[in-house]
Amino acid sequence: MTIDPSTRDPFDVYRLLAGSILPRPIAFVSTIGAGGVLNLAPFSFFTVASSNPPILAFCPMIRGGEHPKKDTLVNIEATGEFVVNIVSEDFASQMNTTAGEYPPDVDEFQLSGLTPIPSDIVKVPRVKESRVNMECKLHQLIPVSDKFLGGTIVLGEVVRFHVLDSMVNDILEVDADQLNAIGRMGGPVYSRTKDRFEMIRPA
Amino acid sequence: MTIDPSTRDPFDVYRLLAGSILPRPIAFVSTIGAGGVLNLAPFSFFTVASSNPPILAFCPMIRGGEHPKKDTLVNIEATGEFVVNIVSEDFASQMNTTAGEYPPDVDEFQLSGLTPIPSDIVKVPRVKESRVNMECKLHQLIPVSDKFLGGTIVLGEVVRFHVLDSMVNDILEVDADQLNAIGRMGGPVYSRTKDRFEMIRPA
Repeated sequence: MTIDPSTRDPFDVYRLLAGSILPRPIAFVSTIGAGGVLNLAPFSFFTVASSNPPILAFCPMIRGGEHPKKDTLVNIEATGEFVVNIVSEDFASQMNTTAGEYPPDVDEFQLSGLTPIPSDIVKVPRVKESRVNMECKLHQLIPVSDKFLGGTIVLGEVVRFHVLDSMVNDILEVDADQLNAIGRMGGPVYSRTKDRFEMIRPA
Repeated sequence: MTIDPSTRDPFDVYRLLAGSILPRPIAFVSTIGAGGVLNLAPFSFFTVASSNPPILAFCPMIRGGEHPKKDTLVNIEATGEFVVNIVSEDFASQMNTTAGEYPPDVDEFQLSGLTPIPSDIVKVPRVKESRVNMECKLHQLIPVSDKFLGGTIVLGEVVRFHVLDSMVNDILEVDADQLNAIGRMGGPVYSRTKDRFEMIRPA
């Protein structure tokens, strides 16, 4: 089937992208909003833009309704700081609680029962339950499309990592079983990362 | 464990990022190089930047050695075109064949035995074995870091999708079992997407 995206409903195109470009890692992003209210939300349009220095990229989408811009993006624009927390299967349902659309004055830490603990460098707290936290300073915002289901690329430089001690070795290889991360598929579906195989890259 | 990335070997930081930000979808990117030689290479720093219009982002890394810039990036700079092909488990080993570092005159379609077939809009061929192909025109190149293990964000607008007919419904929801995509983990490890669960997003 051949599909010209310019002739389709944007939501259909979104479904095709989200159903084909997978499994996607989840950036569980904490920020601080106006008046100090904490915010926590998951984003699966998320990747690495550079390892040297470490710079992450995630892409909040423009939604419909009264608040088209995600609180996370509003907060990062105001403060220049955020933390990317990695989601393991054991607190997946708490993460999902934060995925609803709530007004800016709702603290999703309180809502989900997840625990904010202080970061080293940024003012934004990190998620205690995450085995990996990445404290980030805003590096660059790149507006890509301001239409419904468009988005902005948020680039953040990681200035501090926090990692569960037992999970990494001296050269920072991560034990995938201990991390037990989940990935995002299309629709309401998630993928576990326990069913794995190896392929050695040719020299 | 607290890690200040500025004090660590960049390759350790890369391992930590690639071992924590997962599972990652794979952009299997075809391009045309100088003299018409075809190129095919996998990239797992890959996500969606916008769904309206559909704009993909992937991030080729700066490598060491004589050819620090990936052929894929060189070709896209020259032609402004590429195709993102999605990788299913049944041709994973052929994809892996293309992941080595080869001189620019090597055709990774020939090397892997994968089949180039014509695209509709761009001159670059797509991979017949992929259940989803996304023909892209270069939208923007964003240099992020030119250091070893740094990278560039390549933004491409999808101008045409090709999807296996039986795999999508009228609203372009994708059947994950038929797609049977694989994701990238740390090191030489890949994840299947067969072990899934659902969580309904709160209203």
